[in-house]
Amino acid sequence: MTDFKEKYGQYAVVIGGAAGLGKATSYKLADNGLDLIVVDRSQEYLDQFRTSCAKDYPNCDVITIQGNLTDPNVMDKIFAVSDKKSVGFLSYVVAFHKFGKLQDLSFDEHLSILNVNVINFIKCMQHYVKIFAEQGHGGILNYSSLTGVTTSPYNAEYGAGKAYIKSITQAVAYEGEKEGIDAMVATLGVTLTPTELKNQPGGEAGAAVQKMGMTPEDTVDEIFENFGKVHSYYVGDHPKAQVKKWKTEMTEDEVAAYMGRFYE
Amino acid sequence: MTDFKEKYGQYAVVIGGAAGLGKATSYKLADNGLDLIVVDRSQEYLDQFRTSCAKDYPNCDVITIQGNLTDPNVMDKIFAVSDKKSVGFLSYVVAFHKFGKLQDLSFDEHLSILNVNVINFIKCMQHYVKIFAEQGHGGILNYSSLTGVTTSPYNAEYGAGKAYIKSITQAVAYEGEKEGIDAMVATLGVTLTPTELKNQPGGEAGAAVQKMGMTPEDTVDEIFENFGKVHSYYVGDHPKAQVKKWKTEMTEDEVAAYMGRFYE
Repeated sequence: MTDFKEKYGQYAVVIGGAAGLGKATSYKLADNGLDLIVVDRSQEYLDQFRTSCAKDYPNCDVITIQGNLTDPNVMDKIFAVSDKKSVGFLSYVVAFHKFGKLQDLSFDEHLSILNVNVINFIKCMQHYVKIFAEQGHGGILNYSSLTGVTTSPYNAEYGAGKAYIKSITQAVAYEGEKEGIDAMVATLGVTLTPTELKNQPGGEAGAAVQKMGMTPEDTVDEIFENFGKVHSYYVGDHPKAQVKKWKTEMTEDEVAAYMGRFYE
Repeated sequence: MTDFKEKYGQYAVVIGGAAGLGKATSYKLADNGLDLIVVDRSQEYLDQFRTSCAKDYPNCDVITIQGNLTDPNVMDKIFAVSDKKSVGFLSYVVAFHKFGKLQDLSFDEHLSILNVNVINFIKCMQHYVKIFAEQGHGGILNYSSLTGVTTSPYNAEYGAGKAYIKSITQAVAYEGEKEGIDAMVATLGVTLTPTELKNQPGGEAGAAVQKMGMTPEDTVDEIFENFGKVHSYYVGDHPKAQVKKWKTEMTEDEVAAYMGRFYE
């Protein structure tokens, strides 16, 4: 395996990094020898993370920052801490969604979701990509979702935000090739995180979703086996097969209808 | 052809509707019997539009609004006018881009682009989709780009915004089916608008781009032949063939590299 610390740098910034998929990402980075700057909206999750990480990775320096990504100014607080350290890795894990028809969410609700999935994401990317390009090394792992590939009726803002994240990360991955930056967008199907389990649809749709699910740990294991080798990566056998089918056998309208029926 | 006015409503709001692709869209809607509320950042384009439309469609009521979509408050000015009319159609044509590596644009520059391509877009959609759903009829035609399908290195914010617009419009198209709303996202290849001609790459890449181009009028003719029949529509033979090839024969990394080489 690549020596991450030598190749990318000392500290990894993980946004939404204290629980679920974020915790699995942070742990994997600690396992690869990096120190951590972990941002999470929950102080409780951060405290739990600090305790468990101290036990599991006693040599890992853990800096925690409480911050809610719906706040348009939150990144400044994060930059003020991280700019004093040598940062070589970024993972933007946090995501926000609200179910409902597009018009049933107010503009302020849309904007609140956009702050998490789009506006603070690009603010974060602009800041760290600049640092990584200047120092000539860095790694970026961002998360997208199949809903970003298909569209997501009744969850439109989330799906569109995930499409945005995927597109930006792919562009940076190409642009960064000549600057020592490895970037990957990992597109996930159903990941069995606390948020996911809470929001699954009921009945048969819920059962179907559950069956497709992967744990955060399996997700992250597969990602890190492929990190640095590919820019756009679909995680898991089922998502890979689904995307292939969507691209080759179905129209985009059929695919959108397939996704729409999950939350109807 | 569908009677647009009877099916969708009296006025069409066309954002960025006075020149290029926007003018072609406005003209096509006038040709289908709708009255127009045309928004553009250029008062000169608006004046020219008013003059030529009065000549070509003397029965069309044209309301013009000068507004720059980089302004986060511009939609309020538009709503104040359009809410006094019976609006049945929306077309969001305006788009903004700046070339350069992601980190070479400041966050404020990214935010300025986001205001046009994402934030004011969703504000606009939320407002009119709500009206259309309440009245039980409406049509929506939004524009995306192949760069929203592939990613767009050195033009990342634009490509990601176009991916966002495509995803949102597809979701609304599905959600709106039961509410009398027809929505389409038309994904364009190279369209020979004044902006496009100004921004083409030089040399062989520029010549290749030019050869693929379609006029705004041909673009809009093809779209309106398919409006109401399909939600996600690729305009032109060349884009249709490209997307098919990208989906079936190339990896996403290969497709991104293909797009990246245009502006390298």
